[in-house]
Amino acid sequence: MTTHKIAVIAGDGIGKEVVPAAIECLKRIAELHSLNLEFTYFDWGSDYYAGHGRMMPLDGLEQLSAHEAIFLGAVGSPSVPDAESLWGLLIPIRREFQQYINLRPVKTLDGVKSPLASKEPIDILIVRENNEGEYSEVGGRAYRGLPHETAVQETIFTRLGVSRAAHYAASLASSRKGRLTSATKSNGIIHTMPFWDEVVEETTRLYPDVTLTSELVDALSAHLVLKPWTFDVIVASNLLGDILSDLGSSVTGSIGVAPSANLNPEGDFPSLFEPVHGSAPDIAGKGLANPVGQMWSGAMMLQHLGHPEAAEHLQLAFESVLRDGLGTRDVGGPSSTSEFTAAVLAAI
Amino acid sequence: MTTHKIAVIAGDGIGKEVVPAAIECLKRIAELHSLNLEFTYFDWGSDYYAGHGRMMPLDGLEQLSAHEAIFLGAVGSPSVPDAESLWGLLIPIRREFQQYINLRPVKTLDGVKSPLASKEPIDILIVRENNEGEYSEVGGRAYRGLPHETAVQETIFTRLGVSRAAHYAASLASSRKGRLTSATKSNGIIHTMPFWDEVVEETTRLYPDVTLTSELVDALSAHLVLKPWTFDVIVASNLLGDILSDLGSSVTGSIGVAPSANLNPEGDFPSLFEPVHGSAPDIAGKGLANPVGQMWSGAMMLQHLGHPEAAEHLQLAFESVLRDGLGTRDVGGPSSTSEFTAAVLAAI
Ligand SMILES: CC(C)[C@H](C(=O)O)[C@@H](O)C(=O)O
Ligand SMILES: CC(C)[C@H](C(=O)O)[C@@H](O)C(=O)O
Repeated sequence: MTTHKIAVIAGDGIGKEVVPAAIECLKRIAELHSLNLEFTYFDWGSDYYAGHGRMMPLDGLEQLSAHEAIFLGAVGSPSVPDAESLWGLLIPIRREFQQYINLRPVKTLDGVKSPLASKEPIDILIVRENNEGEYSEVGGRAYRGLPHETAVQETIFTRLGVSRAAHYAASLASSRKGRLTSATKSNGIIHTMPFWDEVVEETTRLYPDVTLTSELVDALSAHLVLKPWTFDVIVASNLLGDILSDLGSSVTGSIGVAPSANLNPEGDFPSLFEPVHGSAPDIAGKGLANPVGQMWSGAMMLQHLGHPEAAEHLQLAFESVLRDGLGTRDVGGPSSTSEFTAAVLAAI
Repeated sequence: MTTHKIAVIAGDGIGKEVVPAAIECLKRIAELHSLNLEFTYFDWGSDYYAGHGRMMPLDGLEQLSAHEAIFLGAVGSPSVPDAESLWGLLIPIRREFQQYINLRPVKTLDGVKSPLASKEPIDILIVRENNEGEYSEVGGRAYRGLPHETAVQETIFTRLGVSRAAHYAASLASSRKGRLTSATKSNGIIHTMPFWDEVVEETTRLYPDVTLTSELVDALSAHLVLKPWTFDVIVASNLLGDILSDLGSSVTGSIGVAPSANLNPEGDFPSLFEPVHGSAPDIAGKGLANPVGQMWSGAMMLQHLGHPEAAEHLQLAFESVLRDGLGTRDVGGPSSTSEFTAAVLAAI
């Protein structure tokens, strides 16, 4: 029986409700598929910050590095500045652990209403480069407060950075419908985008069964609204991918239940799985939170750990409960967090 | 009688069909409102490029500078590389003439189908900073072709650049519903965005009747799909505005008919008015082109020239023809370009 060591950080707000809900389901799935998931719980986040002045201990990354995966709820609280909570936990994890892929499924689910008039099913995987590009650490401000104040941000793309993201995306496309769309903005001024295009094209050529289309990000955003069902896999730089993935899940109506995986595909470091939604302090502690994003992130974690059947089992279970109209109130259903979780356990 | 000197560049493809159509309407409106619009025609674009190896003459900008406005169709042809056609005409015009505002109305029109299930009317003005930010001229590539190749793009924001865009947007909001939304990405790493936020906030404080909301661009993109009817004026940096404005017009279904204004609000230099659509070589010369984007750009030009009533007259005319179901085929109507234009002339 394979053992997988998983670090669990429920974090703040509804993270504390949806993480236990998802873990119950993961445990049941593990039993049925003979997996040994070993969960270790870390009480890091904004409460920890209140007591210690930091989001996680000084050796936090070292503690996490002993695990294969990190299962994160949500981090963020009105009492901690965004910059602290992000730079104190999420961003160092993404970077130090070379989680250079941010993978975001964009998928219509029965029982989750899409804002579009067309009910054509949508099933896209968005591969966002997660370590470089527009989010580089290089930048700052000169002449603070003066009329000639100037702020700069360096966008940095490397061949390694772009090609590994492209490899991941192309190989994913090759395991699906073979269609890869690359988000670009190389028709104008931005110096880095022709380089992005070149490296993505060179890399994709190594996957003869994959057809690559480069689309300007403005047109691509429009197409995601007008004909989202035509996309298969989309690869995008850090900032463009951030925008496109939220856009995509709004088009399917699934933004409140969308999952994400921050992956180090080689497995040299732990990968991190978290829902897209935040800690939602306004509804925290009331039993109203929708645990689907966390469960779906759990299914992505099972997939990454090499258990596609277990992943699908979990996925089909929460999808069927949603289809039966038993979702939580945010998706128009009647269930509390625990009622929904009980229904998923039953469906498993 | 005020005289306005207008430079007309029909450009390529369907530009040559929709510009004459819009000019017929502008002339009729001018008669009825006692305006003297003096049109001077320039045959610049890809055909000119074929003969002269450039998109416009060396002194092109000087020739244009004698006009108050530039009325542009579309530039671009399969025979000319994008970089040439853009850097040879559109981009120098935007920059040399300090057209630091790109204004894009996002509006539902009767007779133009939106992809959304909700039929709530949408009326947004997107103010995009058009001269700096992510589109700076600073950047390049090192170690071309080598494994350690790196490409960089410097994003540069100045206090002048951000504050004049914010002023324009806030004053526009103050003349409408008083709601201004600023697109940001200041919660993470990008060094320029907290500066953007600060300058936008300081500037908006000078407009006490305007309520400012800063929204992260990923969430804002989602909201543009999920509740576009809640926005009034949106201000955004160059790249973010480029994406949000195409996204917005796709949400209203109006992307094929959307107009844009590249403004130098002070009037020190000519402003440029052009539809958002391209030269559409595939349908060029067939009488199929939809002239609404060009007419709408014409209405924006009248507004900029100080004739809001004339602008509204033109706007109501083409809107009424669309409402009557007499649009061109791309919007599901029966009309050719000239039939549609005749109907608008009749409605005027
Ligand atoms: C053609 C291109 C440089 C341009 C831009 O990104 O500014 C276009 O997308 C636009 O919006 O006018
Ligand atoms: C919180 C923020 C830094 C982050 C990002 O932009 O990467 C978020 O939007 C995300 O997508 O995980």
